Amino acid sequence: LRMTREQVVQRVREMVAYARSLCADVEFSPEDASRTELPFLTQVVEAVIEAGATTVNIPDTVGYSTPDHFTNIIEHLMTHVKNIKKAVISVHCHNDLGLAVANSLAAVKAGARQVECTINGLGERAGNASLEEVVMAIKTRADVFKTRTQINTKMIYPTSRLVALLTGIHVQRNKAIVGQNAFAHEAGIHQDGVLKHRQTYEIMNPQDVGIPESKLVLGKHSGRHALRDRLFQLGVELDDKQIDMVFEQFKILADRKKEVFDEDIEAIVSQLFEEAEAMRTWELASLQTMGGTGVTPTATVQLKSRGDDRIHLDAATGDGPIDAAFSCIMRMTGVEAKLQEFDLRAVTGGKDAQGEVNLELVSNGKTYRGRGRSTDIIEASVLAFVNAINRAVAGGRRNGASPEK
Amino acid sequence: LRMTREQVVQRVREMVAYARSLCADVEFSPEDASRTELPFLTQVVEAVIEAGATTVNIPDTVGYSTPDHFTNIIEHLMTHVKNIKKAVISVHCHNDLGLAVANSLAAVKAGARQVECTINGLGERAGNASLEEVVMAIKTRADVFKTRTQINTKMIYPTSRLVALLTGIHVQRNKAIVGQNAFAHEAGIHQDGVLKHRQTYEIMNPQDVGIPESKLVLGKHSGRHALRDRLFQLGVELDDKQIDMVFEQFKILADRKKEVFDEDIEAIVSQLFEEAEAMRTWELASLQTMGGTGVTPTATVQLKSRGDDRIHLDAATGDGPIDAAFSCIMRMTGVEAKLQEFDLRAVTGGKDAQGEVNLELVSNGKTYRGRGRSTDIIEASVLAFVNAINRAVAGGRRNGASPEK
Repeated sequence: LRMTREQVVQRVREMVAYARSLCADVEFSPEDASRTELPFLTQVVEAVIEAGATTVNIPDTVGYSTPDHFTNIIEHLMTHVKNIKKAVISVHCHNDLGLAVANSLAAVKAGARQVECTINGLGERAGNASLEEVVMAIKTRADVFKTRTQINTKMIYPTSRLVALLTGIHVQRNKAIVGQNAFAHEAGIHQDGVLKHRQTYEIMNPQDVGIPESKLVLGKHSGRHALRDRLFQLGVELDDKQIDMVFEQFKILADRKKEVFDEDIEAIVSQLFEEAEAMRTWELASLQTMGGTGVTPTATVQLKSRGDDRIHLDAATGDGPIDAAFSCIMRMTGVEAKLQEFDLRAVTGGKDAQGEVNLELVSNGKTYRGRGRSTDIIEASVLAFVNAINRAVAGGRRNGASPEK
Repeated sequence: LRMTREQVVQRVREMVAYARSLCADVEFSPEDASRTELPFLTQVVEAVIEAGATTVNIPDTVGYSTPDHFTNIIEHLMTHVKNIKKAVISVHCHNDLGLAVANSLAAVKAGARQVECTINGLGERAGNASLEEVVMAIKTRADVFKTRTQINTKMIYPTSRLVALLTGIHVQRNKAIVGQNAFAHEAGIHQDGVLKHRQTYEIMNPQDVGIPESKLVLGKHSGRHALRDRLFQLGVELDDKQIDMVFEQFKILADRKKEVFDEDIEAIVSQLFEEAEAMRTWELASLQTMGGTGVTPTATVQLKSRGDDRIHLDAATGDGPIDAAFSCIMRMTGVEAKLQEFDLRAVTGGKDAQGEVNLELVSNGKTYRGRGRSTDIIEASVLAFVNAINRAVAGGRRNGASPEK
C-alpha cells in the first residue's frame, strides 16, 4: 500500500468517520487481520471504533489461523482495546486447512459475537465457516460457548437443501449436520447403544435441524390440503396462487411415479425460484432419442422459439443420445458452447426417482449454468442444456455487439 | 457394564496383559474417552500402560468434544499418568459438530503422536478427521504444531480421487485441500494479489498435494511410452502387463474422444481394482434405446451369461430409456431390485467427457453398489446396473438357500 502505519491508521479513521456520517451502522474489516501483528491490529481496531465503527470484523483471509491463535487475537483485543465494548467483534474464517468452524468457535468463546458464515460452508476456494456446524456446536455445547444464536435450527436442513439445489453444489454424504449420513448409525455396537440409550450416541436430534422423520409423503390421490400441510411442515410458506402452481406440478409428477417424497416437493418448489419466464428464448417442444451399442446415437429435437412461437426441427448424431441432442440444439440455436461440467443425481430414491441435472457450459468465454428435472434423465439433461443455452443467449444479448467482453 | 470402577480397571489390565502375551504391539482404546471423568481415565490409562499397552487411543466417539477440551485431556494425561512416556498417545475424532480435524490437531499440539483419520474424512455418520486436512495443517503450520508426518503429501490428491472413485462417495466442491475449488481464486482483488505475491494468498502450493499443473495429457497418437510417463507422474506404479491393459483401454477411449485427461487415465486404472472377472455372471452384449417426449421409452438389451456364453435378448419400456433398460435387465436376470441411489458425473470436462455412474440397489434386503463408465452416459448407467446386478447374484449365491438373511 506504500503507506506508513501512521498513515494507514489515519486513513481508516477518516474512512470510517465518513461512512458513519452517512449511516448509523458501520462494519470495519481489515484484510488478513489474523496475520497482522497484534499491537498494530489493536491500534487500528481502537482507532476505527473511536471513529464510529459499530462492528469490527477480524478475517482469516487465507484460512491460515488455528483455534489457539484466534483465541489469542480476540482475547488480546478484548483486554487491550479500551473502547472494545462499543463495538461488536466479528470473525470471518476461511476453510483452507479445514479449521474455519473451529476458528470461528474459538473466537466466539473468547468474546466475538458475530460470525460470518455460509450455508453449506460455500465460499471462495475451500469455502467459509459452515453456518450449520457453527450454530449446532454453539447449541449442543452451550456449556462451553455460554451464548446462543437466534437461528431457528429446524430450518437448517431445508435451507441447506435449497441452497444445494439452487447452486448445484451438493454437500458430501459425510458432511457434518446436513450430509446424508450425518445422523445414520452403522456399526452394530453403536446401533445397539442407540436403541438402549439414545442420548449416549446421539448428541443432536435429527429433528432439531429439521430433518423430517419420514420422507414418504403423498401419493396420486393426495389432495391440495395434504400438499399444503406438508409444505407447512417443510417450512415452505407460499401464497394460494403459488400453491396452485405447485399442486399442478405435483399432480403431473404423481401420475408418473407412485410415491412423491419430500425431496420431490422441494424440487417442484425450487422451480418457483427459477429465473423469470422472460428469459426463455427457446423451449423444448419434443425430443426423440435413439442409442445403444452398435447403433449410431441420434437425437431428433423440436424447439419452440418464444418470439414467434415457431417450431424448429432438426436431428443430429453424437457420442450418445444426450450428446447427440446437445449437438442438435447447438446447431439449431446457433449458440457455440463447450460443456464444462455435468452432474446428475437422483433427487429421490426408487426406480421412478426424479433425476436432476446440473451442468455448466462455456460460450464466448463466459460460464452459464443450467438445471433440469425429470423422471427421465435424458429429458432432464436436455432441459438443463436448453436452460443454459437460454442463459447464454440472454448473456450475449446483455453484452450487445461485443459478446467477447 | 454393571461393574464397579475397580472391576473395570482390573478387567482392562488383564485383557491388555493377555493381548501383550500374544503380540508386542498393543493398542488400547476406551470408548467415549472424551466424555469420561479425567481422574478415572487417568487411572485406566496408567493401568493399561503398566499392563503393556504400547499405544493408548483417546476416542471422541460421538464427536462431542471441542479443541480446548481435547487439549485439557491430553495435557492432563501427559502430566498425571506416570508411565505416559512408555506409550504413544493417539486420538480418534468424529466430525458430528465439524470439529474432528481441529480436535485431532489440538491433541497433536498437546503431545498426541498418532492420529486416526481417513481419506476424504469418510467414516460413520459425519465421518472422521480428514487425513488430508490434518496432514496439511501440520505441514503448513509447522510453526504451531512443531512436529511432522511422514506422509508423501504429493500422493494426497491422487489417493483422494481413487477413494472417491472406489467408494462412489464424492468430496464436495468446497472441501478443503482436495475439493475442486480448494485452490481456485475467484475474487478479483485476490486474483490480483495472487499474481503479485503468490505467497500472500496461497498458504499451500497445489503441487504439494499432488494436483497436476496441467490436466491435458494424451491424444489419439500418443504411444505406450507417453502413457507410461504420465502414469509415473500420477504416482501410479504398474507392471508391464498392467500397462498393456491400460494402454488397450486408452486406445479405445482415444478413438472416441479427442483429448484424454488425467482423470480419464485414473478412471481406466481404477477399473483394474474392480472385483475379479469371476464375479461377472452377466455381461452387456448390446444395447439399443429409444426415448423422448411423446415416444414410449424402450430399451432392447442383449446380455451374455458367462456360464454358457449364451446371448439373451429382450426389450422393455419404462419412464425413460435408462429405466426401460433397467426393467429389461431385471426381467432377464430374474433379480428383483429397487434402485436406491443414482449418481452420475462427468469424470472429465468437455462435450466428449467420460461419464461415470455410481448407483446403489436393494435386492433381498441387501444393498449392492455398481459403477459404470462410458462417453455415452446411458451406456454408463446400464453398465453400472449390470455391475450391481452381478454383485447381487454373487451375494445371493454366498447366502445359499436363504438369501433373506
